[in-house]
Amino acid sequence: MKIGILGSGQLGWMIILEGRRLGHRFLVMDSAKGPASEIADKSYSNESYREFLRECDVVTYEFENIPMEILEAASDEGKLLPSIDAIRIKKKRSTEKDYLAGKGFRVAPYHVCGTFDEALDRAASFGDAVIKTSSEGYDGKGQFRVRHGQYTGERPVDQEFVVEKFVPFDYEASVIVSRDITGTTYCYRPSLNFNYAGKLRYSYSPLRGRKMEEIALRLVKELDYVGTMGIEFFRDGADYMINEIAPRVHNTGHHTLRGFSVSQFEQHVLAVTGSEIIKPEQFVPSGVVNIIGNWPDNEAEKRIISMGGTTIYNYFKQARKGRKLGHVNVCSLSFSALSEKIRETDRILYGNKADLFF
Amino acid sequence: MKIGILGSGQLGWMIILEGRRLGHRFLVMDSAKGPASEIADKSYSNESYREFLRECDVVTYEFENIPMEILEAASDEGKLLPSIDAIRIKKKRSTEKDYLAGKGFRVAPYHVCGTFDEALDRAASFGDAVIKTSSEGYDGKGQFRVRHGQYTGERPVDQEFVVEKFVPFDYEASVIVSRDITGTTYCYRPSLNFNYAGKLRYSYSPLRGRKMEEIALRLVKELDYVGTMGIEFFRDGADYMINEIAPRVHNTGHHTLRGFSVSQFEQHVLAVTGSEIIKPEQFVPSGVVNIIGNWPDNEAEKRIISMGGTTIYNYFKQARKGRKLGHVNVCSLSFSALSEKIRETDRILYGNKADLFF
Repeated sequence: MKIGILGSGQLGWMIILEGRRLGHRFLVMDSAKGPASEIADKSYSNESYREFLRECDVVTYEFENIPMEILEAASDEGKLLPSIDAIRIKKKRSTEKDYLAGKGFRVAPYHVCGTFDEALDRAASFGDAVIKTSSEGYDGKGQFRVRHGQYTGERPVDQEFVVEKFVPFDYEASVIVSRDITGTTYCYRPSLNFNYAGKLRYSYSPLRGRKMEEIALRLVKELDYVGTMGIEFFRDGADYMINEIAPRVHNTGHHTLRGFSVSQFEQHVLAVTGSEIIKPEQFVPSGVVNIIGNWPDNEAEKRIISMGGTTIYNYFKQARKGRKLGHVNVCSLSFSALSEKIRETDRILYGNKADLFF
Repeated sequence: MKIGILGSGQLGWMIILEGRRLGHRFLVMDSAKGPASEIADKSYSNESYREFLRECDVVTYEFENIPMEILEAASDEGKLLPSIDAIRIKKKRSTEKDYLAGKGFRVAPYHVCGTFDEALDRAASFGDAVIKTSSEGYDGKGQFRVRHGQYTGERPVDQEFVVEKFVPFDYEASVIVSRDITGTTYCYRPSLNFNYAGKLRYSYSPLRGRKMEEIALRLVKELDYVGTMGIEFFRDGADYMINEIAPRVHNTGHHTLRGFSVSQFEQHVLAVTGSEIIKPEQFVPSGVVNIIGNWPDNEAEKRIISMGGTTIYNYFKQARKGRKLGHVNVCSLSFSALSEKIRETDRILYGNKADLFF
C-alpha cells in the first residue's frame, strides 16, 4: 500500500524504516524536510496536500501539529488512521483533559482559563501547579511552573491555558498500546520514565503496572482507536492518573525495536493498513536514552557501543539546545544490568550530574 | 555514504533495510530487478556499471555470480569490500576447496575433474560422493549424488567438476563472522542447520561449538576479510570440517535481526563503510525458517504469527518451485521452546512430512 505520513520527524522516519519490510511505499507530507522525508519514496509540501491525499491509500500522522484543514480533508476521504477524533482531542490540552475526565479516567485536578492572570489565580489556589498553554506545547515548551502559589517567570500572551495541580507523584510511567481494525488490542509492558526540564531523558521496561495496561486498553476502546498510542501516567500512592496521551508512536516505545518481538512502529503500520497486529513478547529488558542538544563525540559513542546491547539512532538533525538528535536503545539480559547500562549511557551523554536527578 | 550493492536479491534488500538507519544511501546494480532494487535509492543495469561505480563511495556484493569484469573494475577503483580475493576464491568450487585445503582447514576429501566421466570414476572410488559443478552451482543446483559408487541421473555437459567424498556428518552448522578494517572480528554463536534437497530449510542458534568460532576467526584473518561472512561446517565425530564459505551475509544469519543486539546486515554495513563493528550479544535463542516454493495462505500466516516471537519476511518474489520467497525469524525465551516453534513453523509451511527428516 501507499502509506502517507503527516509530519517528517524521527517518528515518521522509524515508521518507514520498520514498515518498508512489509512491502509498503511511504509518502511524507510536511512544511519542512525532516529525517522521514530523506528516506520517503516521495515527499510533499503542505501546499500540495490534495495531490498527496490522492496518491495515498491510507494517511497517518507522526505529530499532532498538523493543520486541521489537512486532517479533515484526509478524514473526509476516509483515509485517516488513527481517526480524526483521536487527534482532535489532542489538539488542545483542555479538550484532552475534558475528554479523559469526562470518561472517568483519573487526571490531575485542573482548570481551563482564558487569561494568564486567571491561570495564576487558579494556580495559587492549587499551591504547586503547572500552567500549560492549551495549544502547541510539547517537550516542556509552553509550560510555566508555579511553586507555593508564586510565579516569577516570563508572562506569555493571553490565550487558553490549562492549570494543573502539581501532583507529588512517585514516578512517571508510560504504556504503548496498539489496536487494529478488528479491535484486537495489545499493550507493551510499561516503561519507567525519567524526565528532565520537560523532556524525556530515558525510559525503560518492564515496569510492573497491570492497572496501567487496563486503563490503556479501556482508553483505546473508548476512542475506537486504530494504530499505536503512547499514554503517560503518574503513579501517586497506590493509583495511577493519566498525564497525557499521544495518538501516535511514542518516544518511550523506541526500545520496542530491540527488546520485543515486534516494534511499536510495525504495529502501527499493521494497524493502519488494516492488518492484524501481533502480540508483543518482551525478549529482554530494554529501554531508551535520548540524545538531546549535543551529539556525543567519537569517544563517547565508542563507550556507549562497547557496553554491548546498545544501538545508536542518529536522526541526522542539526544540533540545537534542547533538540532531540537521536537516541540509544539499550538492552540487557537482566533488569538490574539494564538499569545500570541506562544510567551509564545517561552519564556518558550528560555527565555525572545526571546522578542528582534519580 | 553511497553504498553500491552488486546483486538485487533478498540479501541486498535486508542490507538496505538495516543500513538505511545509519544514514547511508544505497545503489543497486543487477541485470534483473529484485527486492533490493525496489527499495534502493537508485538502481542500475549491469551495462551501466561504470556509471554505478563512479557514483558509489564503496561497493559490496550480495551474491557471487557477478561478472568478473565488474568486480575487477570496482576493485581497481579501490572501492570493493570484501576484497576481490574473497570472491575470486568463491568463483569456482575448485578454487575454494584448494584455498581451504592449502591453508590447512579441514575439508571433505575431494578431486577436481575436467569431465563428468572422470568425476564418476573418482566418485566411485569414494563410494558415496557428491559431484558438483565448479561454477554457478548454489542451493543444490549443479549437484549430482553418487550412492555406493552408482549414478543413474542426468548427465551434465562436460566442464570442471569437484567430486567430494560424502561425509557421514552428524549435522551441519554455520557461523556468521564479521571483521572490520581495523581487524576487529566478532562471531555470532553457531547455528544448527537443517537442509533438504540442497536448500536450507531452517537454522537455529545458539549451538555450542567454540572450535567453529576459532576456525571462522582464523579464516577471515587469513583472507584479511572486511565484511560479514557465512561459513558452513560439518560436524563429524569430534571435529568440524568446512563445507563451504559465503563471502557475504548468509541465510543462516537472518535471525540475527531479532535474536541479537546487532544484525549480520548492520555489521556488514559498518565494516564496508570503514566503521567499527559491534560485539554481538544474543538476547534470546533465535532461528530462521525459509519459505520456499509456495507462499503460505492467510490461515498459515496467522498460525505462524500467533505463536508469538515470529516475524515473517516476504521478499515479494514470484512463487516458483524451489525458490526462496521469504523466511520467518523465530525467537523464544528458551532454547527448547525455540526448537518447538521452529519445528511447528516448518510443519505449518511444509506439512507433517517434515518430521521425517529430523
